[in-house]
Amino acid sequence: MKASESKIRVRYAETDKMGFVYHANYYIWFEVSRADFIRISGMTYKDMESQGIGMPVISTDCVYHTAAHYDDLLTIKASIEELTPVRIKFKYQVFRDEDNKSIAEGHTEHVFVRTADGRPVNLKKKHTALYELLCEFSRKEEI
Amino acid sequence: MKASESKIRVRYAETDKMGFVYHANYYIWFEVSRADFIRISGMTYKDMESQGIGMPVISTDCVYHTAAHYDDLLTIKASIEELTPVRIKFKYQVFRDEDNKSIAEGHTEHVFVRTADGRPVNLKKKHTALYELLCEFSRKEEI
Amino acid sequence: MKASESKIRVRYAETDKMGFVYHANYYIWFEVSRADFIRISGMTYKDMESQGIGMPVISTDCVYHTAAHYDDLLTIKASIEELTPVRIKFKYQVFRDEDNKSIAEGHTEHVFVRTADGRPVNLKKKHTALYELLCEFSRKEEI
Amino acid sequence: MKASESKIRVRYAETDKMGFVYHANYYIWFEVSRADFIRISGMTYKDMESQGIGMPVISTDCVYHTAAHYDDLLTIKASIEELTPVRIKFKYQVFRDEDNKSIAEGHTEHVFVRTADGRPVNLKKKHTALYELLCEFSRKEEI
Repeated sequence: MKASESKIRVRYAETDKMGFVYHANYYIWFEVSRADFIRISGMTYKDMESQGIGMPVISTDCVYHTAAHYDDLLTIKASIEELTPVRIKFKYQVFRDEDNKSIAEGHTEHVFVRTADGRPVNLKKKHTALYELLCEFSRKEEI
Repeated sequence: MKASESKIRVRYAETDKMGFVYHANYYIWFEVSRADFIRISGMTYKDMESQGIGMPVISTDCVYHTAAHYDDLLTIKASIEELTPVRIKFKYQVFRDEDNKSIAEGHTEHVFVRTADGRPVNLKKKHTALYELLCEFSRKEEI
Repeated sequence: MKASESKIRVRYAETDKMGFVYHANYYIWFEVSRADFIRISGMTYKDMESQGIGMPVISTDCVYHTAAHYDDLLTIKASIEELTPVRIKFKYQVFRDEDNKSIAEGHTEHVFVRTADGRPVNLKKKHTALYELLCEFSRKEEI
Repeated sequence: MKASESKIRVRYAETDKMGFVYHANYYIWFEVSRADFIRISGMTYKDMESQGIGMPVISTDCVYHTAAHYDDLLTIKASIEELTPVRIKFKYQVFRDEDNKSIAEGHTEHVFVRTADGRPVNLKKKHTALYELLCEFSRKEEI
């Protein structure tokens, strides 16, 4: 299993009046992290969309261990938790660089669709190369 | 168990290039819905904070059944899923008014803290009236 | 000149660690207000897009008079500041309901384009009815 | 006059259904850029706040030359446009790395306040060192 590492600097816009990062923003960081994960595989999510493949989100979850603050430098690790020809589930771990503390961890689950009409797609059949690439990067080689 | 109903009109800002609502925005709607839930109990979350009680989020999850679109009018139902003197878990259901379709459902879990220092607080002991109010609104009267 | 009035309840997500509303969010409220302005004209911005007309933003500005806070109920008035067959400029005024204070005012300027290819469109020629409708709602009947 | 350069990778969350970056997000990038500008001066905005100085926004404006797209790598240049002991105005220019196109330019104007009570502060009197540092970085050495 491969993992990517993304650096995020907390923006003022991402904090709320409690003084910490607003919880919904972690999912945006997960998106950044997921894009970086795909990027290290040699393609980009933008490329995937250009080739007619999208990955709309079907479920998300996150557990928050401790608060992240404005200007914190964070590292987000992304990896593939599950992969089938029709679905993919990513796992994310957020760490603060300063004290190496685990800030949060979560998941996002996606289906593969044709961007043209939003219909589900069997990635293994329709884009074998891409599917095999993702298999290579996932924990389980194939299901 | 009581439930609140909030109306949300999807903003253009909440959509993404896929043409639908970006998934992280549901958690912001959950916040609106949670605030309305507390409001119908006769106080507001703003009041709670003024009285020194905060409810930082410790976990969130959401399952997306179908896409919401720009300008959709949505109804979000909030209810209490679990309540203890130190924690509360809300459940949310999102429906589209036009076709009454279930769009998504999710949860947010919170701890009660003193806003002064962020320390956990036993709501039952420290703010019995508020705790009893929430009990009254929750499925289980008390744990 | 007609004006629309939109009600906005400040979301927690819209605040920042300074304790007030983060400045960029006013532009999102302007969008809500602009959509309501178009709605009272008898159509919706969603309809406009369905008919192949978009209004991408070419400039924005805002002056902030005083801070808006979490849970504030705000009224946003929108009106047309300028209208030509190829451009439209909206004006927005934000008031807090509680004390009727002027919170902010700003503008957004848009061009009319064909959504199909993003090319500028002469609204007066291509969609005379819509243009006349907007004229009716603007300060100056026509330029 | 010194200028800072920040790199921004466009997030999916920052796009809207038109397929481009939603206009309000530029102001968030300006914030990132402003923070980087302060950072190269040897302190951080976080430090400023720790020392009791805030810079709430009193006006913002932006002109959009062309659309930015998902995954675009952008460079944002920030510089000081005006500086007095009580106010500061920043200028921002956004370029796309791929084609070096100018995407947008804008400004944000801020007052110096005490974070303790939000009262205006004369930076030159109260924090001479910080004021002189900013002078050094601004076009006009002093007003």
